[in-house]
Amino acid sequence: MRRTLLVLLSSLLLLGAAPLALAQTEVERWGTAEFTLAGPAAGSPFMEVQLRAVFRQGARSLQVEGFYDGDGQYKLRFMPDTEGVWEYETESNRPELHGRRGSLRVRAASAGNHGPVGVRNTYHFAYADGTPFWQVGTTSYAWTHQSAALEAQTLQTLAQSPFNKLRMAVFPNRDDKGGPPRFPFAGQPPKAWDLTRFNPDFFRHLEQRVADLRALGIEADLILFHPYDKGEWGFDRLPPEVNERYLRYVVARLAAYRNVWWSMANEFDFMKEKTMPEWDRYFQIVQASDPYQHLRSIHNGLAFYNHTKPWVTHVSVQSGAIAADFERAVLLRDVYNKPVVYDEVKYEGNFTRRWGQLKPEEMVLRFWEGAIAGTYVGHSETYQDPDGLVWLAKGGTLRGASPPRLAFFRQILSQSPAEGLEPIDKWQEHPFAGKHGEYYLGYFGTQTPTRWPFVLFRAGLKEGMRFRAEVIDTWNMRITPVDGVFELTRRDDYTFADKDGRAIALPGRPYMAIRIQRIP
Amino acid sequence: MRRTLLVLLSSLLLLGAAPLALAQTEVERWGTAEFTLAGPAAGSPFMEVQLRAVFRQGARSLQVEGFYDGDGQYKLRFMPDTEGVWEYETESNRPELHGRRGSLRVRAASAGNHGPVGVRNTYHFAYADGTPFWQVGTTSYAWTHQSAALEAQTLQTLAQSPFNKLRMAVFPNRDDKGGPPRFPFAGQPPKAWDLTRFNPDFFRHLEQRVADLRALGIEADLILFHPYDKGEWGFDRLPPEVNERYLRYVVARLAAYRNVWWSMANEFDFMKEKTMPEWDRYFQIVQASDPYQHLRSIHNGLAFYNHTKPWVTHVSVQSGAIAADFERAVLLRDVYNKPVVYDEVKYEGNFTRRWGQLKPEEMVLRFWEGAIAGTYVGHSETYQDPDGLVWLAKGGTLRGASPPRLAFFRQILSQSPAEGLEPIDKWQEHPFAGKHGEYYLGYFGTQTPTRWPFVLFRAGLKEGMRFRAEVIDTWNMRITPVDGVFELTRRDDYTFADKDGRAIALPGRPYMAIRIQRIP
Repeated sequence: MRRTLLVLLSSLLLLGAAPLALAQTEVERWGTAEFTLAGPAAGSPFMEVQLRAVFRQGARSLQVEGFYDGDGQYKLRFMPDTEGVWEYETESNRPELHGRRGSLRVRAASAGNHGPVGVRNTYHFAYADGTPFWQVGTTSYAWTHQSAALEAQTLQTLAQSPFNKLRMAVFPNRDDKGGPPRFPFAGQPPKAWDLTRFNPDFFRHLEQRVADLRALGIEADLILFHPYDKGEWGFDRLPPEVNERYLRYVVARLAAYRNVWWSMANEFDFMKEKTMPEWDRYFQIVQASDPYQHLRSIHNGLAFYNHTKPWVTHVSVQSGAIAADFERAVLLRDVYNKPVVYDEVKYEGNFTRRWGQLKPEEMVLRFWEGAIAGTYVGHSETYQDPDGLVWLAKGGTLRGASPPRLAFFRQILSQSPAEGLEPIDKWQEHPFAGKHGEYYLGYFGTQTPTRWPFVLFRAGLKEGMRFRAEVIDTWNMRITPVDGVFELTRRDDYTFADKDGRAIALPGRPYMAIRIQRIP
Repeated sequence: MRRTLLVLLSSLLLLGAAPLALAQTEVERWGTAEFTLAGPAAGSPFMEVQLRAVFRQGARSLQVEGFYDGDGQYKLRFMPDTEGVWEYETESNRPELHGRRGSLRVRAASAGNHGPVGVRNTYHFAYADGTPFWQVGTTSYAWTHQSAALEAQTLQTLAQSPFNKLRMAVFPNRDDKGGPPRFPFAGQPPKAWDLTRFNPDFFRHLEQRVADLRALGIEADLILFHPYDKGEWGFDRLPPEVNERYLRYVVARLAAYRNVWWSMANEFDFMKEKTMPEWDRYFQIVQASDPYQHLRSIHNGLAFYNHTKPWVTHVSVQSGAIAADFERAVLLRDVYNKPVVYDEVKYEGNFTRRWGQLKPEEMVLRFWEGAIAGTYVGHSETYQDPDGLVWLAKGGTLRGASPPRLAFFRQILSQSPAEGLEPIDKWQEHPFAGKHGEYYLGYFGTQTPTRWPFVLFRAGLKEGMRFRAEVIDTWNMRITPVDGVFELTRRDDYTFADKDGRAIALPGRPYMAIRIQRIP
């Protein structure tokens, strides 16, 4: 290829498709346009060559960092967030990469492409097109560091699963026997790395997996650092300048994938080598270099990061107890005024450690309690399969009993008000979330009531309002309509009740819910 | 008095004593030295006259703001935190107040004077001399706006009570029938105030009451703004520049009282007139003008202030549910990494509103649950006495059943490790606080166990350690030693148990606790 070529190739990345080295001038909204340019292969391209492009449409411009992809190839990826024509121009410290111009036509998003997920209504999430995003997450840290067959199996499992978000680590885990197939840096394991050269193969593979998830409608909550290396390869204790270069490289490569979330770390506080100012700076680097402002958070071990900092878009928390009780789960909303995701609440399974021993009923309960608190919860499982695989670590298959119940749960969520489930009365034990005057979802957890007197907190209610109700068995996944209509009368300073004093019969089993909707 | 006099009078304020207009050159450590100077009475002294003094001892200096006390009298108050001689010199924009010099001899603190309370060990409090401060608070908002007889009765009640901190408002409450005896500004109620002139009588009275509390060993958690004026007198909606002047004046007058805490507000978010940047600025004004850095916090209604901000020394929270469960109460520690005080957790009483209906058992339970979580709780009560008095609003007498149990509770706290009660195992339902390997205080709340297997979380434990135990009936206020000695053996990955597998018998009643202490 001639070095002095103009923008050589621009390619359109469709869902799951690999980058094509063809000149493309069209992409769908929130798709990934990729432009490939020939440039210097000699020297130290990762360190010495700068490349970026500015994409303009009318008064708006987005600055996109390019990256070196090996073999003398430089790339720029762009995810347009509007339809119509975008003009672009490159900037580089190398003449052959500098001043390249062109235009990109952006057509409407295809079916199933709702754009990236962002914050909505303070405590909730929505896709960019306004579609609510009801987070039902799972975790499989090292699923992209496995054999092709196992990774394919994981994708197949996910396709059948209820999960719309997957927490996954960029770096491998030490407990991957024999080590992963690829490493992020040039060099040789365990530690003979050339930290000035990334390994493009590693990242191309990762991107393919992120694109695979995108094709399944699953958000990739990318964990940028984690402590599970424990010095084996040293990725948990790279020098700050390498960490910063790594972050810019990952953002340059992956920000144009609409399903990416940035999780700065798993159990950040277990990486004793990094200081709090470093974490702050890493956050700020990601914030500054991501033109699309994908969601950003950080996951704790024992100590919390200060999620009130402005670069944190939502709260990501590990806590063994917090999601077991809606009155606990609700508390962090008031503290942070951001969406709260309890990404780790112990896992379903039979592991010897106490964080991996939840019964499936307990796993499902946490999703419901979290929802009643106006928050979101994450799943994983620790059952070992005969080959020693564990979903939490490596993916493969799910063996637990919670996923079908979580599919049922997600279905209930998806029928809830688009604004998100809000606690109806956070002050006092009232296990209902919903929308005042319109929609009430109550959950009784491990309690086994035989009746629920029809009494609702006053906000948004008036005399004479009429409601219908359903009883939901969250474990057995059954929805049973309640006969008749409930009409409200004021009961006291705080509540309205059915005017005839009726109650709803319940079966005396645990894990029951009630759904109440206003009759227009 | 001649205006050109040197520092005219310096007086020593002893506990409860009124300022004396006598030249004094000695004060006890953490006592209040008061210096009175004659100055201009004409014009607008509050607005036009600046006065401060710098107190120096060796390499240290503290800048103290003076204030106008009416009748041509200017005052400076100083609370020395070390013994020995302090030199001082005044600065003023009036020559008769400028350049006055002198020295103050500081003797040792008298018995019962432990200095101001500060933060210790991240989550706890201690007096400046190192004595632990085990916060057992109560609230009586407007007790200083009552008749002299009622205020005397309140002080008598407090003297007999378990409480070592009192939340109290500077400004009166609208519901004080006929209005309070004094107002903070010159002028006439309801609203004909001269906001350029404070009413020194009002503040002298307030100071006397703060000094009265000091004499009783009670911290005065001074609420600087509150929403209970509702526009009656307008103190809840003063212009920002008046608020700022008011804060500086209050700090100048009261910072030298060692028992002062600054609570920026009660239910700050219910004052819709003030913006968050204003609250931040008010905090910063208090922080900058208080040479002693008394504790600072702010109390919420429904929305939390961001207690991670650096000028917040400890967390002050209202929540109806948080202190009813140690697993809830513990959560805010991780979020804030500061001492957490649940100042309002509903009140004991029989009020019609749901925040004032706690049974005494429920009030006491909250203190215990809070303590097990490594946090602190506040009391008040809403019972009406025959004269329509309510402790929460006006003081008077306590009628509830919780105070004796809170005295018992405080006694248990005072026998706990000086470092403060720390959750023993915050990850998983384990109702114990204490000090690993040394001291364990467990609380079973409303549960009614008949036995407790002797099993402790592993941290700090070794095979063969020996412990003795007591059973505590927190409601009936009885401590019963358990026969024998418990010797530890490792039970599993997480716990140690008595080597003979013994359990402690419990009476099957609620509100039971267990205290376990290592035998050296």
